[in-house]
Formats: sequence, structure tokens, C-alpha cells
Amino acid sequence: MLITVEGLDGAGKTTLISGLTETLDAVVLREPGGVELSERIRELVKDPAFDVDPRAEALLYAAARAQLVAEKLRPLLEGGATVILDRFVDSSLAYQGGGRELGVAEIRALNAFGTGDLQPDRTLLLRVDPAVGLGRIAGREADRLELAGGEFFARVAKTYDELAAADPARFVVLDASEPPDTVLQAALAALT
Amino acid sequence: MLITVEGLDGAGKTTLISGLTETLDAVVLREPGGVELSERIRELVKDPAFDVDPRAEALLYAAARAQLVAEKLRPLLEGGATVILDRFVDSSLAYQGGGRELGVAEIRALNAFGTGDLQPDRTLLLRVDPAVGLGRIAGREADRLELAGGEFFARVAKTYDELAAADPARFVVLDASEPPDTVLQAALAALT
Ligand SMILES: Nc1ncnc2c1ncn2[C@@H]1O[C@H](COP(=O)(O)OP(=O)(O)O)[C@@H](O)[C@H]1O
Ligand SMILES: Nc1ncnc2c1ncn2[C@@H]1O[C@H](COP(=O)(O)OP(=O)(O)O)[C@@H](O)[C@H]1O
Ligand SMILES: [Mg+2]
Ligand SMILES: [Mg+2]
Repeated sequence: MLITVEGLDGAGKTTLISGLTETLDAVVLREPGGVELSERIRELVKDPAFDVDPRAEALLYAAARAQLVAEKLRPLLEGGATVILDRFVDSSLAYQGGGRELGVAEIRALNAFGTGDLQPDRTLLLRVDPAVGLGRIAGREADRLELAGGEFFARVAKTYDELAAADPARFVVLDASEPPDTVLQAALAALT
Repeated sequence: MLITVEGLDGAGKTTLISGLTETLDAVVLREPGGVELSERIRELVKDPAFDVDPRAEALLYAAARAQLVAEKLRPLLEGGATVILDRFVDSSLAYQGGGRELGVAEIRALNAFGTGDLQPDRTLLLRVDPAVGLGRIAGREADRLELAGGEFFARVAKTYDELAAADPARFVVLDASEPPDTVLQAALAALT
């Protein structure tokens, strides 16, 4: 059983997962990362010293994910574990495909290659206004977002909505502007 | 003008390129690498400490290449430079597509995405028996190649041959079992 948690920065993914693990017996992995090579790729892709080309960025995320799947995620699932992933392929579809405008279909193809087309059983999408999410994690910093930044996050949010609308059997859309415990109870209700 | 040099390990690519630059006014770049981020990716992909998943490997090579193209290769070509690349997309088609059996079409798609489908004007393929190439670079080490290793390099060589046969207008196939100066003269004749 593979559960992924998706949503904008500051939507409350990590908070929700920590609540879920008090009830569910699950292994939690974060993306990009989760295994040594993928953590090293994460360092490169997040290093502000590099002006990472958007296409290279998309390929690096797909590479980190492929290694995580091969080395850890697939063995866990084959062993019968329930795994909760803090971000997965939908993050790349939303951020690189939508946000960076590289195309959802193109990013989907890279990731289908990398993961062997592994699909989550259930995806919890924490839906929140980008300004609210960014406000939660950055305080006054969010006010200084440039217009391009705001448009970038609006495209990410729109792409998440489109992905959820296109696959209602897999996506559970949660209103992440509600208090943490309300979000947690809604998530648990949807999963059980 | 973009010239790529391809062939098995020990075929003589670096030797040939060094000879070519005595006659041609060209910028030489190596793959994977050529820019800081790509060199860092090269370190990861070549680090024997990691058991790199073949799909992650293919994505990492494509990422390193995408960054090289965006940051350095495309600007050089747009500025009118002649660039000689020590390996390019065909290496991934041969090694990851053929050698690792991930499929030439799949690897071509990743790299078309990463490079914006940049095509070399001319590709020099240094054709040599795998055992000869490996013997040149590893001496007695080559004798200890496991059967799987031998089969791997045979698949790489076969894929290179198929790529050259499918695109005779771009590929110049050189007999790399000849002495270095014979190879160099044949390459210069083909390029001018
Ligand atoms: N439902 C919520 N309402 C208000 N604040 C929240 C909620 N969920 C999380 N937070 C707070 O917002 C911040 C970001 O939460 P986090 O779980 O780290 O988000 P994410 O992992 O999606 O980036 C944290 O300070 C957290 O305590
Ligand atoms: N045509 C050739 N005949 C014999 N030896 C060669 C030839 N070309 C290169 N070599 C030698 O083979 C080794 C590998 O050459 P190199 O150019 O580094 O190969 P590659 O870059 O393709 O791996 C070097 O020691 C080089 O001097
Ligand atoms: Mg988080
Ligand atoms: Mg060389």
C-alpha cells in the first residue's frame, strides 16, 4: 500500500504525515531523498550555487526518485509494508510540468521510465492558497515574492487541481486551510 | 558546428580529439561533465560507493547533458564556435539503451527532452573490438572481465553499429584498430 501526500510548500504535508503515523503503521520516506544517492542528488538540485537548467532539474528529480524506488520503495512494498511518501511523481508533474512549464505529459514520461510506472494507491492532496502556504513557512518573506514567483506557484496549484480532477479514484482532496486536526481527521476518514 | 566522437572505452576518442585540435579551431568538452553541476553529477554516477540503479543512471547522464547543453554548449554553438564533444547522446543510447538493455527509443526520448533534441552535425564513431579497447586501457585487468561484462560491451558495440547504419549522413565510421595517425588522417579527411 503506497500513500503519497502532495501539495504546495507550507500546505502541511509533513505535519499531516506525522499525525497519520500515530494511527497508521507505516514507513515514511521523503522526496527527493530517502536513500543516500538520492539525498546527494537532492543537495545538488537544491544548492543555490547552481543555476540549474529546468530540464536538468526535472531529470535530477526523476533520477532521485528512480533510485529511491529501486533501492528502497519497491522492496518495502513487495515486503507488504504500508509506505507514506512526502511528495512523489505528482510533485514533478505540478512543479516541473506546470510550474516550470515543461509540460505534464513530458514529465510524466520521464517518471514512468524512472519508476517503472509505479502508481500510488491513494494520494492526499493538501489544497491551500499558495500565499497561505508560503505565509506559513516564510512569514514576511512571502510578501517579497516576485510576480514570477507568484505566477509559478499559481501554475503549480492549478496543475495539482487538474491532476486531482483527472483521477478522482486515486486523489483525496483535503482543504488544508482548516486546522491541522481537522485535516488529519479528514485524511484518516478517507484512508479507512 | 557540433562534432561528437563516440566509441567504446579505449577506442581512442580522447587521443583522436587531441590530434584534431592541432588542425581544427574547436572547443573541446567532455561528457559527462563540462560544467560544474555536470561534473558533480559525474562524480555521483561514477562513485563505486553507490549501487546506482540503471534507470537512475540513465536519468543522471541525461541531466548532466541537459545542464551542459543549456549552460555552455548551446551558447557556444550560437556564438558560431566549432565544438568537439568527447561522447554525447549516442553514448547513452549505446551504453544505457543497448548495454543496460533499457531500450534505445526510451533513452532517446529522455535525451531529446534534456537537450531540446540537439543533433550533432557529424559523429565520428571509433569502431574497435571491445576486447581491444579494454585491453588498451586496462592491460591485464581486461582478462578478468566477467562474462556479463563481456556481453555488456558486445551489446554496446552492436548498438553503436546499428546507430551508425541508421544514420549514415551523420556518422563517420572509423577503423580504430588502425594506428592513431591513420585514424586521425581518416577523421580529418571526413571532416573537410
Ligand atoms: N492545517 C494547518 N493550519 C495551519 N498551520 C499549519 C497547518 N498544517 C501545518 N501548519 C504549519 O505550517 C507550517 C508548514 O507545515 P508543513 O507540514 O511543514 O508543510 P509542508 O510539509 O507541506 O511544506 C508549519 O509551521 C506547520 O506547523
Ligand atoms: N589507434 C590506436 N591504436 C593503439 N592505441 C591507441 C590508439 N588510440 C589510442 N590508443 C591508446 O589507447 C589508450 C586509450 O586511448 P583513449 O584515447 O584514452 O581512449 P578513449 O578516450 O576512447 O577511452 C591510450 O593509452 C592511447 O594511447
Ligand atoms: Mg514538508
Ligand atoms: Mg577518453
